Amino acid sequence: MQFVSNSFRVKYSETDQMGFMHHSNYLILFENARISWLRYLGLSYKKIEEDGIWMPVVESSLKHLKPSFFDDELTTEVKLKNLPKAFLLFNYKISNQLNQIVCTGSTKIAFLNSKTKRPVRCPHFLYSVFEEGFNK
Amino acid sequence: MQFVSNSFRVKYSETDQMGFMHHSNYLILFENARISWLRYLGLSYKKIEEDGIWMPVVESSLKHLKPSFFDDELTTEVKLKNLPKAFLLFNYKISNQLNQIVCTGSTKIAFLNSKTKRPVRCPHFLYSVFEEGFNK
Amino acid sequence: MQFVSNSFRVKYSETDQMGFMHHSNYLILFENARISWLRYLGLSYKKIEEDGIWMPVVESSLKHLKPSFFDDELTTEVKLKNLPKAFLLFNYKISNQLNQIVCTGSTKIAFLNSKTKRPVRCPHFLYSVFEEGFNK
Amino acid sequence: MQFVSNSFRVKYSETDQMGFMHHSNYLILFENARISWLRYLGLSYKKIEEDGIWMPVVESSLKHLKPSFFDDELTTEVKLKNLPKAFLLFNYKISNQLNQIVCTGSTKIAFLNSKTKRPVRCPHFLYSVFEEGFNK
Repeated sequence: MQFVSNSFRVKYSETDQMGFMHHSNYLILFENARISWLRYLGLSYKKIEEDGIWMPVVESSLKHLKPSFFDDELTTEVKLKNLPKAFLLFNYKISNQLNQIVCTGSTKIAFLNSKTKRPVRCPHFLYSVFEEGFNK
Repeated sequence: MQFVSNSFRVKYSETDQMGFMHHSNYLILFENARISWLRYLGLSYKKIEEDGIWMPVVESSLKHLKPSFFDDELTTEVKLKNLPKAFLLFNYKISNQLNQIVCTGSTKIAFLNSKTKRPVRCPHFLYSVFEEGFNK
Repeated sequence: MQFVSNSFRVKYSETDQMGFMHHSNYLILFENARISWLRYLGLSYKKIEEDGIWMPVVESSLKHLKPSFFDDELTTEVKLKNLPKAFLLFNYKISNQLNQIVCTGSTKIAFLNSKTKRPVRCPHFLYSVFEEGFNK
Repeated sequence: MQFVSNSFRVKYSETDQMGFMHHSNYLILFENARISWLRYLGLSYKKIEEDGIWMPVVESSLKHLKPSFFDDELTTEVKLKNLPKAFLLFNYKISNQLNQIVCTGSTKIAFLNSKTKRPVRCPHFLYSVFEEGFNK
């Protein structure tokens, strides 16, 4: 499934003195798009945490092809790359209002039991939804 | 007591496209200075939270006298303005490496019981330290 | 005119370890709402800067009535409080998806000539739009 | 040369609702360490920009081995991995106060002419310093 997030305007507070959106914000765009993807599949990440599962980022990579500027309208494509086991792998592609790709990247997400703070395998209540998200 | 925080360099990621430190960062400087002030008085804010007390900001005001720039070295003066009851009132003054005052402000801090999330009066284990911080 | 911004979801990256949206983010919500208000009146803040005018925040105040949580949907009401001279005064009211007011505040905005970095009075090309925004 | 930055305390505003430092902050730690490394070699990044050169991040990767918590004291090791041509490659290793490695990563940095915004090869006035930083 190729999910595309709502468009999002680059905020003034996200610019730096080059006039670019500071590069650390792309990781936040990845995260927001991942959470929107979950919502699209019927899952609330808020609810997942309330059910005792945390899904922290354990690896990420980013490639910046063009700068983004204040007021640019960015959309993020998210794609799940694996059937969930101990980890989820996501790919991302961020485009601006001119359909130029500004950033690509990937993240690896773990599952933690929020009580023990220990890694766990993908819980059953999430597996089928991720499977659907993978196959769609 | 007039406590002055360690100096802190304005980060590249904190600049905006005017080349100024974005104004939202001053609230973070206030917070960091408040936490350093606690540490100076022998209190760890981390420990205070572990002991079941949260101290959220409920009001704040800021006045910006000059912009701050990347790599500027800022120090923050903190002063407790009242003996603690339901709230703490703090005043702040931020200066740069040229001893120019760039920002003044104040915050009002509440005490919450972190279990019930309800406001409480200043707990006993904190009162005497704040009293010392007020009188010094 | 009582302008209300689009709703905006609290991001995971904006939460702190109390589980609240960190209070520094409210200043960013004020800024975004102000920029949306300008856009609603037909002005692009990006364009204003390109035309040589900067509009930095020189004072602000915030009152926090309730915490905001991850995934809350916040809207910001903006109201211009004066006919523009050397400054603009704005009031803000932020509400969540339950129509609870979570934060109120105000900011004072200056006009700078971006070349000289000196304060100027409200430029003519902006005055009539602000007047409209004030009277509407 | 293995340069180690000053230690830096995790700020309250950098925590998220898991109680971890939000992962986007590690890119900012990399950046700050890189700027400290330049300073150690006698270069001011502020001055480099004033001299017409921007050094944006064009690629980055991060691996998170452990979470960081509020008030943790983090230090960042920086190592330049190549003699500068069109790009600089840096490796990073972030450790906490218990000498546990919490994050490793790398970034690829380009050189831009800040007037034309076009990529350039490493300017002469920087080459010898980077060479020294590489060989040391």
